[in-house]
Amino acid sequence: MDKQSFRQMGYEIIDWIADYMESGYDGPVNPPVKPGAMRAQLPKSAPEQPESPAQIMADFKSMILPNTLHWNDPRFYGYFPCNHSGPAILGDLLGNGLGVNAMSWATCPSATELEIQVMQWLGKAIGLEWPGVIQDTASTGVFCALLAARESVANGNRDGFYDSAPLVAYTSDQAHSSLLKAMRMAGLGDRYMRLVPTLEDQSMDTDVLVRMIDEDIEAGHRPFFICGTIGTTSTTAVDPILEISEIADEYDIWFHVDAALAGTAALLPEMEWLMEGVEQADSFLFNPHKWMFTSFDCCAFFIKDPAALKHALSIQPEYLKTAADGAVENFRDWSIQLGRRFRALKLWFVLRLYGLEGIREKIRLHLAMTQDFARWVEDQPGLHLFGTPRIQTVCFHLGENESTKALMERINATGEAFMTHTVVQGQYLIRVSFGQAHGSWETLDRLKATIQGCLDAG
Amino acid sequence: MDKQSFRQMGYEIIDWIADYMESGYDGPVNPPVKPGAMRAQLPKSAPEQPESPAQIMADFKSMILPNTLHWNDPRFYGYFPCNHSGPAILGDLLGNGLGVNAMSWATCPSATELEIQVMQWLGKAIGLEWPGVIQDTASTGVFCALLAARESVANGNRDGFYDSAPLVAYTSDQAHSSLLKAMRMAGLGDRYMRLVPTLEDQSMDTDVLVRMIDEDIEAGHRPFFICGTIGTTSTTAVDPILEISEIADEYDIWFHVDAALAGTAALLPEMEWLMEGVEQADSFLFNPHKWMFTSFDCCAFFIKDPAALKHALSIQPEYLKTAADGAVENFRDWSIQLGRRFRALKLWFVLRLYGLEGIREKIRLHLAMTQDFARWVEDQPGLHLFGTPRIQTVCFHLGENESTKALMERINATGEAFMTHTVVQGQYLIRVSFGQAHGSWETLDRLKATIQGCLDAG
Repeated sequence: MDKQSFRQMGYEIIDWIADYMESGYDGPVNPPVKPGAMRAQLPKSAPEQPESPAQIMADFKSMILPNTLHWNDPRFYGYFPCNHSGPAILGDLLGNGLGVNAMSWATCPSATELEIQVMQWLGKAIGLEWPGVIQDTASTGVFCALLAARESVANGNRDGFYDSAPLVAYTSDQAHSSLLKAMRMAGLGDRYMRLVPTLEDQSMDTDVLVRMIDEDIEAGHRPFFICGTIGTTSTTAVDPILEISEIADEYDIWFHVDAALAGTAALLPEMEWLMEGVEQADSFLFNPHKWMFTSFDCCAFFIKDPAALKHALSIQPEYLKTAADGAVENFRDWSIQLGRRFRALKLWFVLRLYGLEGIREKIRLHLAMTQDFARWVEDQPGLHLFGTPRIQTVCFHLGENESTKALMERINATGEAFMTHTVVQGQYLIRVSFGQAHGSWETLDRLKATIQGCLDAG
Repeated sequence: MDKQSFRQMGYEIIDWIADYMESGYDGPVNPPVKPGAMRAQLPKSAPEQPESPAQIMADFKSMILPNTLHWNDPRFYGYFPCNHSGPAILGDLLGNGLGVNAMSWATCPSATELEIQVMQWLGKAIGLEWPGVIQDTASTGVFCALLAARESVANGNRDGFYDSAPLVAYTSDQAHSSLLKAMRMAGLGDRYMRLVPTLEDQSMDTDVLVRMIDEDIEAGHRPFFICGTIGTTSTTAVDPILEISEIADEYDIWFHVDAALAGTAALLPEMEWLMEGVEQADSFLFNPHKWMFTSFDCCAFFIKDPAALKHALSIQPEYLKTAADGAVENFRDWSIQLGRRFRALKLWFVLRLYGLEGIREKIRLHLAMTQDFARWVEDQPGLHLFGTPRIQTVCFHLGENESTKALMERINATGEAFMTHTVVQGQYLIRVSFGQAHGSWETLDRLKATIQGCLDAG
């Protein structure tokens, strides 16, 4: 690919993205496709000779787009917002242009130093003064927190855990499944993952937490990890972080706080309550790739004292030693992977091109849209609002599970809105997750009209 | 950031990348910087108000670039090639533009189906007919392989490994450190990681491997994982894969093959010998982000039977269930992370815009440059070639360790070439790792001249 074709195709893609960001996709937000249908259109082998940019762009438009769930279309209300934005896309483009590997300070000083600094900016903006590092996802982040916790109880154990008392982890029954996956990967067993029951508002019942810890100690186990959640996946419930931190402190247990989705809201002074007690914890994360317009993947992981994490993950073969070791942070020792992208660039772009006020303005809009939509749900005959939305997710139902499910399927079949479900306390719930970078009062009106149409047709 | 500014800054970055790819960086390839120096220039907090694209680009040029090790400059011969290319950069840009999350088939059918297909293309091109998935890095890949192996011996064990016989893994003393990290993360202990001694050519001594396995069985341990390497990090040594596969088969041990760097060479018919025996193994990986011009991160991970891997990593909370489950692959069950980028797009771009022949042509050039450089080293008085380069790395020394180290430091201080070291059999070695996307006979001449200058000055 020569310089001229690169520039030409580059401009074309930039233009395509600019239009896509402005107008969304001109087909259904969620494609009505069958498994294997797209793959059947693809050749069986890679081409031997080069193909043209024009052919590829044509295939992209005719084949990829109609088989894509459009996460960045304002009609997308499923799962969680997974936002890109102009600044993030351009920051990542520049990072790919450099193409460095930021595994150690010496392998790219600018990448490590910018990462330290933008993570400090971000921590400060949410009221946290801990060192931070960018992980790819919250799954990796919670796994790292768990490994640090394991290291801090089994200090220097390099013999495996065959002779250890079972290590027990605790989280609420509404917490994210990545914690169970982390326990399993770490070889500590699903069996020792306690799911603490939740109260009426889906927050952790700390009385039961204490009882479970006592029972485990009684049984000769070693409680070592508690994960609290600020903004659960199903209903954005918030655990009593301060209270849990006191329990963790009393029993000398590592306390990790998962605010993967909701953490962004802590940028707002009026939402500071979200962070109450977090500074008493040991580690904390949130995902700018969810609600802070920083393209996936970008998980902001903070840790009060990184010593245990680095001790757990540091391995120094000869070919990775550098003259700067000891005087610098080598972020490869803060995570699973050795190689690392220059992800700080996109975060730097987002923070500078939006400014904190620019981000806050968008978040406030999303929170206001959430409240407006919740009131609208309450006003619709037949629709029941579930709980009291305090962040950016509204859950509702029709009373009966099968008809709720049927309504969601009708809505999604229109192609004019996409939402996903959960089940809480036996109740099938439709989740509407706000936070689209390109959402507006006008797109909210369209959402209401779409749901109204499906209710009328039901 | 409005549409017009996005387009303008996008064009500017595309132009900057086009120039950077053509000419490299106009300063030293490796910057002579002190820890903390760049960070001291950065503000202490994120800006409250938006800043302009012009300010950011100016900071990028005046601050980031002079503090960057330029991995994609043709003067970079350190570590391993970590190549970007025009096609990969554009494919990733388009993927970021879509901004989907490819965790499940249903969360983006096009991403999963394209990934299945391009991995099939890639497997076919190197003679492997196993299903494949894109992992971020080889560290994650080998960890997944190890978890699959663990699952296949401890089938369905969800109680942790407290009551298990110790599980033992084997690899050569020249293998990559990520395997030890994987053992430690999996809770199986550094202690049960056996580093099998190597022969004169740095390949695994399989007689000792068999002896170690027998001793472990004798001691009541359970051998469960062997990792063979095609192209070790230090000297690109190649383990006897076919022989190891027979041993693994006899003892019923999972056999993983790590060809992170060298795998790309298997695209050439004349290098098919590299893959001999691989189809007898259980899993295999190589990194297109190393030597196949596919920007980091892109690790091609193949597995003969993914059942154990999926069993090890699958967790199905209600909010992730989709109507298509059971009929499709959900790649979140093939890896650590839940969220996934649409990485197949960049691989699709690379394979189509280069074509397999276009890639082979570049690889052949790099192999020829390697041989030419090795002969040149042999011809220089005082320089000693270490071993016989068979892939793309040349190791050499001056006889005495301190003077070899001093020579490397002199070369790197010129800013006209960057290389890194290793130690093998007590010998300090300078490694020259070929494979730059923009390398040529002319850049090779400049390398020789730089080294010659440092020898003359030494």
